[in-house]
Amino acid sequence: MAGVSIATVSRVINNSKPVNHDVRIRVLKAMEQTNFLPNAMARNLAKKESLLLGVMVPEVKNTVLDDLINGINQVSRLYGYNIMLSLTAGTLENELHYFNMFREIQADGIILASENLKEELVKGIKVSNIPLILVGRDSLDTVPTVHVDNVTAAYEAVTYLIQQGHRKIAMLRVRSGDIASGDHRYQGYVRALNEAGISIYKDWVVESGISVEDGITSMRKICEAESMPTAIFCATDRIAIGAMNYLLEIGLRVPEDVSIFGFDGIDMSSFIRPKLSTVKYSAEEIGMTAARNLIKLIRGEEISSRHWIVSHYLENRDSVCTLN
Amino acid sequence: MAGVSIATVSRVINNSKPVNHDVRIRVLKAMEQTNFLPNAMARNLAKKESLLLGVMVPEVKNTVLDDLINGINQVSRLYGYNIMLSLTAGTLENELHYFNMFREIQADGIILASENLKEELVKGIKVSNIPLILVGRDSLDTVPTVHVDNVTAAYEAVTYLIQQGHRKIAMLRVRSGDIASGDHRYQGYVRALNEAGISIYKDWVVESGISVEDGITSMRKICEAESMPTAIFCATDRIAIGAMNYLLEIGLRVPEDVSIFGFDGIDMSSFIRPKLSTVKYSAEEIGMTAARNLIKLIRGEEISSRHWIVSHYLENRDSVCTLN
Repeated sequence: MAGVSIATVSRVINNSKPVNHDVRIRVLKAMEQTNFLPNAMARNLAKKESLLLGVMVPEVKNTVLDDLINGINQVSRLYGYNIMLSLTAGTLENELHYFNMFREIQADGIILASENLKEELVKGIKVSNIPLILVGRDSLDTVPTVHVDNVTAAYEAVTYLIQQGHRKIAMLRVRSGDIASGDHRYQGYVRALNEAGISIYKDWVVESGISVEDGITSMRKICEAESMPTAIFCATDRIAIGAMNYLLEIGLRVPEDVSIFGFDGIDMSSFIRPKLSTVKYSAEEIGMTAARNLIKLIRGEEISSRHWIVSHYLENRDSVCTLN
Repeated sequence: MAGVSIATVSRVINNSKPVNHDVRIRVLKAMEQTNFLPNAMARNLAKKESLLLGVMVPEVKNTVLDDLINGINQVSRLYGYNIMLSLTAGTLENELHYFNMFREIQADGIILASENLKEELVKGIKVSNIPLILVGRDSLDTVPTVHVDNVTAAYEAVTYLIQQGHRKIAMLRVRSGDIASGDHRYQGYVRALNEAGISIYKDWVVESGISVEDGITSMRKICEAESMPTAIFCATDRIAIGAMNYLLEIGLRVPEDVSIFGFDGIDMSSFIRPKLSTVKYSAEEIGMTAARNLIKLIRGEEISSRHWIVSHYLENRDSVCTLN
């Protein structure tokens, strides 16, 4: 009707490439006359896109992941994409399994939160040609990632404690193998102590699970060490909240007796008393950046980087005291 | 090889119908000799099941829904089902949309958390013949549901406050239309006050959003009323935590000046100070019961009821004081 090719109509609808002004008007007029409504489904069929993004996270009992998912969801909707979530419990088996399911239902792209990404999965995803973005941690350099600079942020938090006069600083870390909250945050702790010429005391580094209850258990272990630290750097806010609860239960005051520093800036960190000092960043922003760039990859658009770092800052509240 | 029909082999593998003992042995022997491993996918193809459960929740920034999802996930894995989650933001449009996506990817059944379920969706689901279970609230009586007895639980919480000597009891409720945390919990509040012959004071009933920040805002409104209540019943723990934070900020003590009672028993309710008195129940149990019975429906097995009530109790901690 407009005397143009389907490709040209598509360009007009999607604004994907420049189209001559007169041609554009002709196409729009023809669309009006025929009541042609380019809906998501039709666009989808034409492009062989499902308009579906698969999101794989270990679990949802975790405010950081919730925020991340909300960020992904927000941007996806804006661009007309739907998301489906799967819970992997962080195991390679489940990751492979759900990745295959997403392939079967023809997801256009995948966002993966995985603390210990295995080469096997990366290869599988590459072969499948489905765009992937990894969130929350650094990666093998071939996979695009969005994350906080965990090493630097942890280094800054511990350096801040040292500047407040603390030299006996313990860390409740997450287990080795969990790249972001485990290894990288611990590296920052080590670097800060090294720079200040403080040696690391083995009994003051305790591996913790990631629940508040785990924080309670791990804090108890620190208290069983021969001497007490004056400050504890915790790999996550949930661990920090557990640690604070244990200290309060045994009659120690935070921060007068022991200072606590967290990481993540979850909303609860400002609703407990004392308010928790913590490394703050926006997990929502991580999700939004990941979704935005995944959609660019799907559409074959250029992306500005393969590694996006979401900024952080130290939110100094009431759980740290200055030593004289 | 065993000289039996495919249907018989299927019966042996799935234990779905009785099979003659000798036949059973023959089939198992043949399977052993041929290294035949009935995997999930093959079972799936034979049964035309996708072994996939669709789960629709409004959002994930909410501990109760996280626990619910974890419960669903746990039982689903046990039975060899996978789950895919979608976030509906609680709108009918999204619910219909994701329901259609689940139909397209041939989900075997759907678990839906929806505060204001519309007849339109229920009809769509019925036509599709996909088993559905609704969680978290009562329903139109044709849809199977798993939930807490919200009216009774709220009634008990407010009655407890009255028994502690409170007569000036405000409520931070969720908006009308949200069946469980909105209407039903409010009904319980009204019933308890009515029974005790206490009239309801309009300015002490405030509609709140569901975030902690909303709780802060709503508590401020109560404080702006002409007189202060001595106790606040909050429709959710997150609202209660917000209310407590606001009171602490303006220099009022909980429970000495104002008592607070929550609902949900989220983990944070025991990690804040004072520890929150609340209606406790297991959202995980709701999820598990829903998944278990959904799988029964999918398999055509009998279910014991169409309305499962998960039990609750009052967890009396430190946020309520007794008036003389």
